[in-house]
Amino acid sequence: MKLATLKNGSRDGRLVVVSRDLKRAVEAPTGLPTLLHAVENWAAAAPRLQAVYQALNEGGGVGAFDFDTRRAAAPLPRAPQWCDGSAFLNHGELMQKAFNLEPLPDIETIPLMYQGGSDDMLGPHDDIRLPDEAHGIDFEGEFGVIVGDVPLGCTAPFATSRILLLVQINDVSLRAFGPREMRTGFGFFQAKPSSSFAPVAVTPDEIGAAWRDARVCLDLGIEYNGRWFGDPNGSEMNFGFDRLISHAAATRRLSAGTIIGSGTVSNAGDKKGSACIAERRAIESIAAGAARTPFMKFGDRVRMEARCDGQPVFGAIDQRIVQAERPQ
Amino acid sequence: MKLATLKNGSRDGRLVVVSRDLKRAVEAPTGLPTLLHAVENWAAAAPRLQAVYQALNEGGGVGAFDFDTRRAAAPLPRAPQWCDGSAFLNHGELMQKAFNLEPLPDIETIPLMYQGGSDDMLGPHDDIRLPDEAHGIDFEGEFGVIVGDVPLGCTAPFATSRILLLVQINDVSLRAFGPREMRTGFGFFQAKPSSSFAPVAVTPDEIGAAWRDARVCLDLGIEYNGRWFGDPNGSEMNFGFDRLISHAAATRRLSAGTIIGSGTVSNAGDKKGSACIAERRAIESIAAGAARTPFMKFGDRVRMEARCDGQPVFGAIDQRIVQAERPQ
Repeated sequence: MKLATLKNGSRDGRLVVVSRDLKRAVEAPTGLPTLLHAVENWAAAAPRLQAVYQALNEGGGVGAFDFDTRRAAAPLPRAPQWCDGSAFLNHGELMQKAFNLEPLPDIETIPLMYQGGSDDMLGPHDDIRLPDEAHGIDFEGEFGVIVGDVPLGCTAPFATSRILLLVQINDVSLRAFGPREMRTGFGFFQAKPSSSFAPVAVTPDEIGAAWRDARVCLDLGIEYNGRWFGDPNGSEMNFGFDRLISHAAATRRLSAGTIIGSGTVSNAGDKKGSACIAERRAIESIAAGAARTPFMKFGDRVRMEARCDGQPVFGAIDQRIVQAERPQ
Repeated sequence: MKLATLKNGSRDGRLVVVSRDLKRAVEAPTGLPTLLHAVENWAAAAPRLQAVYQALNEGGGVGAFDFDTRRAAAPLPRAPQWCDGSAFLNHGELMQKAFNLEPLPDIETIPLMYQGGSDDMLGPHDDIRLPDEAHGIDFEGEFGVIVGDVPLGCTAPFATSRILLLVQINDVSLRAFGPREMRTGFGFFQAKPSSSFAPVAVTPDEIGAAWRDARVCLDLGIEYNGRWFGDPNGSEMNFGFDRLISHAAATRRLSAGTIIGSGTVSNAGDKKGSACIAERRAIESIAAGAARTPFMKFGDRVRMEARCDGQPVFGAIDQRIVQAERPQ
């Protein structure tokens, strides 16, 4: 099943069911106004949405219309929570080598995770409005999951059953703030403006065997200003989403609609490129003593898309960096 | 004006207007179901709520009933965002001395702030369910503000105009996770389970001259298991809420309903006690080489209340620590 949220002037948008090929859509049935409402009431909502999805794929669907990703918001424009892991240790090792960071002793046993802001998620083609190119503007290609209610102390095996939907994310990052914010111990804040989402959230069955060990085992294709930047695969995640959810719920319950991110998708070796500029710069630094690739400028574009057996899954993120208006 | 949220089985509860003395309440008018809805539409909502508030204080209010804080949820049980500062540098200096932390060079010019979870805020008398006493369970008494929509790049003077309501908070903390999570650079996560809120959110005019320089200049009385623990005053905040909001909005806009916290209220000198156990332990360590006061045990209670000229303001937080049920 594939779901999206269309902008309609309200903060949470309007839930629509999208056909498997992403070409057609239809409004979710009465009583299911938003995706948040649906994930909060999943047991009742899912069969109703599934019936609409099936009809749509069979060429039916009363009131169906062409699906225009330009009208799409993030699947959850305002999520109850955004917890972003850093579950590809290859990425962390590269950053550590390049910046001579002290290795964390328990990095292979305890997932890294930060609490992100979730009040203002961007749609796939929304401009990313930022105040200053000097802030080291970067993209980060990630996969993520949307969960139902998760009890405190949830184990990894049980956590898998709480995964309702998969999503694809651009976790926009401002690298100039990172080192200082990490040094304070309080973690990322100004370094993490709003994240962006591919238009469609999908149930795990939509990617078949590529949903494996609670990982999205798809290549995430990244194009920067129209040129290949990387296509790392989600299979090399050192902690699956089950482990990330269990980590997040160790000391508190998680409300339905919480989004858990994988962190930058990153593969060992030199064939798959990178899903963020910072990682490419780290590789350049390690190889040649200095980074060559600059961070993003206003007007730059990034495109991110994962396909499954050549078919679209989440649709594409394709967006520009633009200068924010002068503040008040 | 004083507002509260009563539990009604829904995730966001039901907005009520509360009399100045906290004795009576009345449901908010039709079309204003929740506090989140009201802060999102404040220009239209505030005059309607103010009219109800005035009638209630004059002994009227159609459908008024006794206000029972046992039925109160947090004012925003599910807030779009929770950004917690650490704006009392006295607290930070004590922690730094006690734990031999490296001083941060720009601590007096850039506010410290972490992103907290905001999907599951607790009411004033809700039990705090936690898995293990060994996690170093602590309370933190704080003041906070609820803002309307804040534009990216908002300056401190403009930020003051975006402050709609004041709140009083118990930022529950698990000290055993803090040092490791700070060392990772990713910041607090498992160290920060759900926070709790006093029952009533108030407009700044309700505390008169005690709302000064964007600070809540009231004593925050803390009782731990029925004994005085501290009553530090909010006036010694090194950064006002205006500065904290401006910091939070430096690289992104903030959605209406975002809550900004002061961090543990803390005063210089030895007369005012502390608003958290960790600070008292730091003082003990500095004075005698070792901490004497243990962290909280299951069954322990904490009570927090700020009064203004002897009158109630937010009502009291008064809650127990209890062991969470066995996880699934």
